[in-house]
Amino acid sequence: MQIWRIDVSAQTLSIEPIPAAWEKLGGRALLARIMLDEVPPTCEPLGPRNKLIFAPGLLVGHMLSSTDRISIGGKSPLTGGIKEANAGGRTGMHMASMGIKALIVEGAPREKGLFTLRLSVQGAEWHSAEALTGLGVYDSAQALLQRYGEKVAVSLIGPGGEMKMLSAGIQNIDKDKIPSRIAARGGLGAVMASKGLKAIVFDNAGGQKPPLLHPEAFKQAQKEYTTALLAHPQTALYRDYGTQAMPQMANGLGALPTRNFSSGVFEGVENISGEAMRDLLLQRGGESETTHACMAGCTIRCSNIFGGEDGKSIVSPLEYETVGLMGTNLGIDSLDVIARLNWQVNDLGLDSIEIGAALGVAADSGVFAFGDGEAALRLMDEIRVGSPLGRILGAGAGMVGKIYGNERVPVVKNQAMSAYEPRAIKGTGVTFATTPQGADHTCGLTIRAKVNHLDPAGQAQVSLPAQLNMAGYDSLGACIFAGFGYATAPAAIPALIHARYGWDAPADYLQQLGRETIKMERAWNKSAGFTPKDDRLPEWMTREPLPPHNTVFDVSEQDLDTIFDNL
Amino acid sequence: MQIWRIDVSAQTLSIEPIPAAWEKLGGRALLARIMLDEVPPTCEPLGPRNKLIFAPGLLVGHMLSSTDRISIGGKSPLTGGIKEANAGGRTGMHMASMGIKALIVEGAPREKGLFTLRLSVQGAEWHSAEALTGLGVYDSAQALLQRYGEKVAVSLIGPGGEMKMLSAGIQNIDKDKIPSRIAARGGLGAVMASKGLKAIVFDNAGGQKPPLLHPEAFKQAQKEYTTALLAHPQTALYRDYGTQAMPQMANGLGALPTRNFSSGVFEGVENISGEAMRDLLLQRGGESETTHACMAGCTIRCSNIFGGEDGKSIVSPLEYETVGLMGTNLGIDSLDVIARLNWQVNDLGLDSIEIGAALGVAADSGVFAFGDGEAALRLMDEIRVGSPLGRILGAGAGMVGKIYGNERVPVVKNQAMSAYEPRAIKGTGVTFATTPQGADHTCGLTIRAKVNHLDPAGQAQVSLPAQLNMAGYDSLGACIFAGFGYATAPAAIPALIHARYGWDAPADYLQQLGRETIKMERAWNKSAGFTPKDDRLPEWMTREPLPPHNTVFDVSEQDLDTIFDNL
Repeated sequence: MQIWRIDVSAQTLSIEPIPAAWEKLGGRALLARIMLDEVPPTCEPLGPRNKLIFAPGLLVGHMLSSTDRISIGGKSPLTGGIKEANAGGRTGMHMASMGIKALIVEGAPREKGLFTLRLSVQGAEWHSAEALTGLGVYDSAQALLQRYGEKVAVSLIGPGGEMKMLSAGIQNIDKDKIPSRIAARGGLGAVMASKGLKAIVFDNAGGQKPPLLHPEAFKQAQKEYTTALLAHPQTALYRDYGTQAMPQMANGLGALPTRNFSSGVFEGVENISGEAMRDLLLQRGGESETTHACMAGCTIRCSNIFGGEDGKSIVSPLEYETVGLMGTNLGIDSLDVIARLNWQVNDLGLDSIEIGAALGVAADSGVFAFGDGEAALRLMDEIRVGSPLGRILGAGAGMVGKIYGNERVPVVKNQAMSAYEPRAIKGTGVTFATTPQGADHTCGLTIRAKVNHLDPAGQAQVSLPAQLNMAGYDSLGACIFAGFGYATAPAAIPALIHARYGWDAPADYLQQLGRETIKMERAWNKSAGFTPKDDRLPEWMTREPLPPHNTVFDVSEQDLDTIFDNL
Repeated sequence: MQIWRIDVSAQTLSIEPIPAAWEKLGGRALLARIMLDEVPPTCEPLGPRNKLIFAPGLLVGHMLSSTDRISIGGKSPLTGGIKEANAGGRTGMHMASMGIKALIVEGAPREKGLFTLRLSVQGAEWHSAEALTGLGVYDSAQALLQRYGEKVAVSLIGPGGEMKMLSAGIQNIDKDKIPSRIAARGGLGAVMASKGLKAIVFDNAGGQKPPLLHPEAFKQAQKEYTTALLAHPQTALYRDYGTQAMPQMANGLGALPTRNFSSGVFEGVENISGEAMRDLLLQRGGESETTHACMAGCTIRCSNIFGGEDGKSIVSPLEYETVGLMGTNLGIDSLDVIARLNWQVNDLGLDSIEIGAALGVAADSGVFAFGDGEAALRLMDEIRVGSPLGRILGAGAGMVGKIYGNERVPVVKNQAMSAYEPRAIKGTGVTFATTPQGADHTCGLTIRAKVNHLDPAGQAQVSLPAQLNMAGYDSLGACIFAGFGYATAPAAIPALIHARYGWDAPADYLQQLGRETIKMERAWNKSAGFTPKDDRLPEWMTREPLPPHNTVFDVSEQDLDTIFDNL
């Protein structure tokens, strides 16, 4: 494998050997290393010194169930810190089969206008993306697949990214050619726009699976892992409900964000639960699918296709995070409305968590009424045309609060929280506060830990292993749900690594990789000017009791400040 | 003198003795001490734990020329750091004669709605400000003077403050009852709104001049100072032109911000120069005045009244900073248009520097065309009605850049630079970068230093004494122009302090006071999470050469990081 480096200024590609210090890293860990080595922490996120980096995880390329994910990163224009956003879909697999260990996009375009960058084993081609400019993600992806062939992988931005909105992500097409796997968080879509790119097409024709040093051993370990994964009770649950298994559970814990994080329970939860959605989709039929894989070879198949009354797909997938942020958080209890909002956000190429949170703050500030789904949909049009109000929303929840003088913003490091109320699940609150990424459940969700989630004591000890594991999974290319298998068959990870690369991987290889990653990320953030004061939930969450438990976030600052002391 | 403490939650006043550690401090120095002692640095700026503090300088109350100023401060919602905004007008004098060493406004209002707080030697009264809500500063001030008598001092906010805009200041009426002396910077008007206050009325009936320990010695030192001040050549210049002496000088140095800081020279400078303005006002006559005092007893009289063709006042005063930011920075070369913009900004209760810079970034982002004064005036209406676009502008230059994805924002610590291009006057660039206040020329302007302003070397040594002096003056209650006198007769300051308080003040008392102040401010900011990474000009100013000298800001980070090392 090699490093592919794109200079957008000269429009050149250079293919370089892997530096020794990068060799044993992948995905999120490799991003952190490249950031430390190459990106000045105080650089302007949308300026020429920032870089946009794509790195498949270490185990990507072999159709290991749920383990073909891509890490995309750079300096976040939303948080000002290091950013890794993780996605499924085809991109990781295609890059691995093209022998790309990491793609580094750097420099600043000399002229205005957007380009499509086509990468293949023959090298790089630049094509004007003028015809796609302003086009939504769905139409753009269609046009790209038509032009470049149906087998390519595509990473692309929507109108939100083009407008350099701070909530813009980078969409990736899934195995069924739907642009639905967004590296959503932290505004990387705006970084891609600042590099003058509308899309990157990965044509892996002529490529091949990455080599396996010990193919038989790999197969054996893969089998162990897959067996463990299939046997895990959560796997079956996710196959039935996907992430939509969560609303009832979160509501039961009093942790379902409701009306801009003003309650942890939602009176309309029955209407938007996983059960309700599954029943609806089974009843509607047509293109609806309750279980659906985003990557080839995935046995969990947690995704879905949400079809309308006519059976036609409205959006795919509809995930819990979106239902939480764009549904309950807005007081909306109609899955159809939420699905339409979700389609809009996807097509705009924006992060549904950030936009949902931004809408929540907007409603809390009187911009529209909680529960008014049609008003929320009209606001999507404001975003699309880039009106001032649309741009305010597109800049994320923190910015909406600043613009409307409303301190009730659910953000850490200016990034919106996902759909787990940190006052009710305090371990996840610790993750939100302390992860270098800004509030993000995928950095260490603790909802399944067997602890009293309301007790402030000991939550750092709950959050830390979750954070290390997730940083490790993100570096392997494994989905959060792959953990069901790897946690049950932990020896599979060192075995897979050894079979793939020949490295002697210790039993706690996953945690070591996670530890190393978080250390590098924290070092980078520190050089960017972050201090322990940034590792805090917003002050109002420490003052305002959350119904129904009427708890505040009261994990001690001491616990927050020492969580990584022994890394 | 005593400390007056207002709890806006209970609507109570408590009058307290001065703590020993506060005794020898005043103005900006006292603010910093109170902030360290009472305001948690990580608090929410618009939340209940922030405080709004008013403190006259140490020498206020005696009609010392240009030395009756007020410091207003708290945690800035614009910068997130400590904030002192300094103003002339009546407020300082009235507070001093009421025996108020500092007024501390704390807590959070229990209900919505704004109040007028009337303070007199009888205590505090709370009156509903419902009738004033939404009213501009000019009409509000009129109404308040009508109700509370023409002799009171008034500090008040406009519609911008009511909307909690981050560029909102606190207006103070001048000796002629015009609300024209704004504690402009850092969003303190939003803090005042968050405390539920539209206005504070200081009725000093029954008050008296602060006591002088040695009245004869005071008179003698005052005479020395005044003589020196009157003899200084700059005094005459400022009496003719006020701050409007600057455009030609700045233009000559290639340091006049033009079209969002893209050039240091403006082709229309002749039309907006001090000479042009003076000629115009003399020709127009009527209410126009080329020389005018803002505080009783001021001998410099740097202020003016800008009258229109009909001789009626359009705005008072029209200052260089406004001409720079709302004129040349927007490509506007009509003093009449600039005066109308200025009136709007004043009436809205906003900082003309921040709004001018915000409009510059907006024009640079395509929101309107440089040079289109009517469009700029229409944007003032957007701000007034609180439209989304108006709110974006009201949130300041940094926010406009984030909303429109434009890195070309002239801010430090998210506060806009004033009208001195730091790439052409690099010592002032050092001040902008390193002052704890965010970019602000009143923290240490170096334009008159006899150095090569384009040379990056040694500029920290130029900036440091200017910063110490200004922090000292801000603590005494002295205007920047008072420095013409104090610098020529430096012994006057220790003499005045000794005569007023009996303290043994060393020869470098001013610098000691300044040093102490900046040390406290930096300590507070550090606890708020600021690091050396915040002491930087925006990156693009280190890359983009500024015509006509085609220089970038290249003072070394080493110099920026060590400037305060020996404080």
